[in-house]
Amino acid sequence: MIVSSDDPIVALATPAASSALAVIRVSGPRSLLLLSQLTRGIKDLSARPGHTLVRCVLADNGAPVDDVLVAIYQAPRSYTGEEGAEIFCHGSLPVIQHLLALLCRSGFRSAGPGEFTQRAFLNGRMDLTRAEAVNEIVRARTDRARGLALERLSGAIEDRITAAREALIDLRASLEVRLDYPDDNADDAPSNVGLKEAEAILRGLAGTYRQGRIYQEGVSIAIAGATNAGKSSLFNALLRQDRAIVSEVHGTTRDWLEGMASIEGIPVRLYDTAGLRQTRDALELEGMRRTEKVIDSADLILYMVEGTSGLSAADQAWLSAWTGPASIVRVWSKTDLPCQPTPPGFYAVSAVTGRGMDELEAVMAQSVFGGETARDGEPLIDSERQRDLLTRALAALESYRQAASDGVSADLLAVDVAEALDALGEITGAVTSAEILDRMFSNFCVGK
Amino acid sequence: MIVSSDDPIVALATPAASSALAVIRVSGPRSLLLLSQLTRGIKDLSARPGHTLVRCVLADNGAPVDDVLVAIYQAPRSYTGEEGAEIFCHGSLPVIQHLLALLCRSGFRSAGPGEFTQRAFLNGRMDLTRAEAVNEIVRARTDRARGLALERLSGAIEDRITAAREALIDLRASLEVRLDYPDDNADDAPSNVGLKEAEAILRGLAGTYRQGRIYQEGVSIAIAGATNAGKSSLFNALLRQDRAIVSEVHGTTRDWLEGMASIEGIPVRLYDTAGLRQTRDALELEGMRRTEKVIDSADLILYMVEGTSGLSAADQAWLSAWTGPASIVRVWSKTDLPCQPTPPGFYAVSAVTGRGMDELEAVMAQSVFGGETARDGEPLIDSERQRDLLTRALAALESYRQAASDGVSADLLAVDVAEALDALGEITGAVTSAEILDRMFSNFCVGK
Repeated sequence: MIVSSDDPIVALATPAASSALAVIRVSGPRSLLLLSQLTRGIKDLSARPGHTLVRCVLADNGAPVDDVLVAIYQAPRSYTGEEGAEIFCHGSLPVIQHLLALLCRSGFRSAGPGEFTQRAFLNGRMDLTRAEAVNEIVRARTDRARGLALERLSGAIEDRITAAREALIDLRASLEVRLDYPDDNADDAPSNVGLKEAEAILRGLAGTYRQGRIYQEGVSIAIAGATNAGKSSLFNALLRQDRAIVSEVHGTTRDWLEGMASIEGIPVRLYDTAGLRQTRDALELEGMRRTEKVIDSADLILYMVEGTSGLSAADQAWLSAWTGPASIVRVWSKTDLPCQPTPPGFYAVSAVTGRGMDELEAVMAQSVFGGETARDGEPLIDSERQRDLLTRALAALESYRQAASDGVSADLLAVDVAEALDALGEITGAVTSAEILDRMFSNFCVGK
Repeated sequence: MIVSSDDPIVALATPAASSALAVIRVSGPRSLLLLSQLTRGIKDLSARPGHTLVRCVLADNGAPVDDVLVAIYQAPRSYTGEEGAEIFCHGSLPVIQHLLALLCRSGFRSAGPGEFTQRAFLNGRMDLTRAEAVNEIVRARTDRARGLALERLSGAIEDRITAAREALIDLRASLEVRLDYPDDNADDAPSNVGLKEAEAILRGLAGTYRQGRIYQEGVSIAIAGATNAGKSSLFNALLRQDRAIVSEVHGTTRDWLEGMASIEGIPVRLYDTAGLRQTRDALELEGMRRTEKVIDSADLILYMVEGTSGLSAADQAWLSAWTGPASIVRVWSKTDLPCQPTPPGFYAVSAVTGRGMDELEAVMAQSVFGGETARDGEPLIDSERQRDLLTRALAALESYRQAASDGVSADLLAVDVAEALDALGEITGAVTSAEILDRMFSNFCVGK
């Protein structure tokens, strides 16, 4: 990616498919002037006030390409902070292709992934936590993930980091006093003003990463159990609520079914596996092997037992033999029919009446999070980059704490505080480098 | 479809896929007021001037859903002629789903296909030929088809129909003179003022339908010939120019290849078939049967003969046995190598050097059009509805001509003229009905 932000860029901001309309985004110095030259009858778009819409015909060498509306943005009141425009054209593939080619022939360069957002950051329109949230909201797969990303986009992480920075700046100030007047404080233990506060904020945030990641990236959950344990009914019941699409995998060889669902706001890839059973048939054995592979790689297993017939020796054998990393939620099924009493540790459900389904979903979410849930009101982080920097800052503060109790001098303690402040500066982008930005924006979509 | 246009409607105007941004369109009385109530801090969007952009947070019961830009449109200066807005939100599926659900809970109704354009027509913003062109430009698959649809969108058809109507109104006036002063004209043949002019315009337009349809809908072209005749090289050469995607059909059983190309602006589905050959192998026979099916259903066949070895008995047999409806373009291939002289009726090409390729493409287009090409500057029609109405108007004028030469009285002649005027009125929508509109707009995409 080119970090220079002094050339006009262009990208399609909507999917490349036919629809009612498409949006092409341009940004950079002279972009309104360049665009003006493509209008029929040459309208001076750069003279128009920002945040207004102008209807015009864009023409290629005089031949009209499309009748469009252009949204005008004047610097610095724009997404990127530069002057720019959004072109609303007909959502026709030849229109999109022709306009993009025309713009690239007329002084614009195709933008790289995330380049508009990168410019927004470079021009001080948003910090890096908000910039990452832009990508996170676009990639969100459930409404809960959207809400979490929007919270980050609104600055919830930035606010926490700023508060921690301020606490550490207080800590640094107290160290500077010791350096300036060493004799006055020679015998006192070094002040820990701000240290606890900063640590509490950073630990709180760092602790949300696993949960934030799960909401954003999702998990896979396999439904296992004997043939006829009610797996498919539960599978359909979990999917139906979210109108997800069920697709049969491996054509006619029905080894397992797969569907996307949202369980308590977590994007879940749900697998309905073939019943576990004894077999000698070569084809069935192959099917069993594949089923076991799906179960082995799942993040969570729902193990189903038919409540009407109760726990079989095979069920008990499978459950006690399980040594995989995934936790197991035990489900007692078909409880709309006369059933054996529900054994301890099992959740009674009926996919027919919906009984126990809400509780089951809550238990599934808890099991997925493994008990680690964020404090109420704590924004969840999804960025590995942010988590690594939080860990680095916390390690520096731990080093400070150790050194201070060892009676290390204030000038050396100040090094640890500077390291922690540096890590926090990288989180928001106050401290950054071209390489960091390149890595960060390269997984954005084009047009953002 | 509901023809009433007194309720606020909503639709997604961009494809339902994640991307930088998505556009949700609303239109109808009170739509800005309804939208205002969803903004955080309640902005009065209806008080904003039209063609301006307002940034705001849309919230569901106080909880923010997304940070958006809203384009304000005030009646009658809008696409539909009603007040309305376009919401530019993050191109995230949960954002789109949440906002659409929220809007539908807040007084908006999901728009039917083409309902925005239907309202534009009902509110006098465009005639029906332009309305149809909106759909045609969205569905265009080549740049030529885009250009033709844009010409129609700019009113080229409407202008022709208006000119024909005016000519017929002159004709009707001359008949009215005869009715008002029957004695003065008793012995004259009825005036044909305007008749010829109207007929010329309508015939010109009607004659463009086949070509217009081909540019819009495309054709299928099969490359046939013996194994090793250079079919795959030509296939690739025709596709490469347009960077089309080649997909292997029927998995590993390579019966034929299929790709999309633009040949002289015509969207072409191109088939590279398996070589025609004698075989007794059951599997190969099945492959041959499929190949023949592809050839039989093509609109045009490129029959290739290897110029180096020349016309074989099998080639001659196949060519003389062909009785299908598709015309055949005979291609003499591999002319970059030492070749036999090109026989009459064959087009010499080299897929390697590109020799003869431009001429071949021109011949392919000519053959597809079957010699029927529109006059220079004549807009092409793509609408079956328009073609049928043109035919109806021309039939009425033919009936007029016949009746006039039979000495039929002016009042009866006026019936034919009225019938022709009625058909023209239906083309532009001056004369219309709910059923006609329903049928027309039902094949539009939603959001348009």
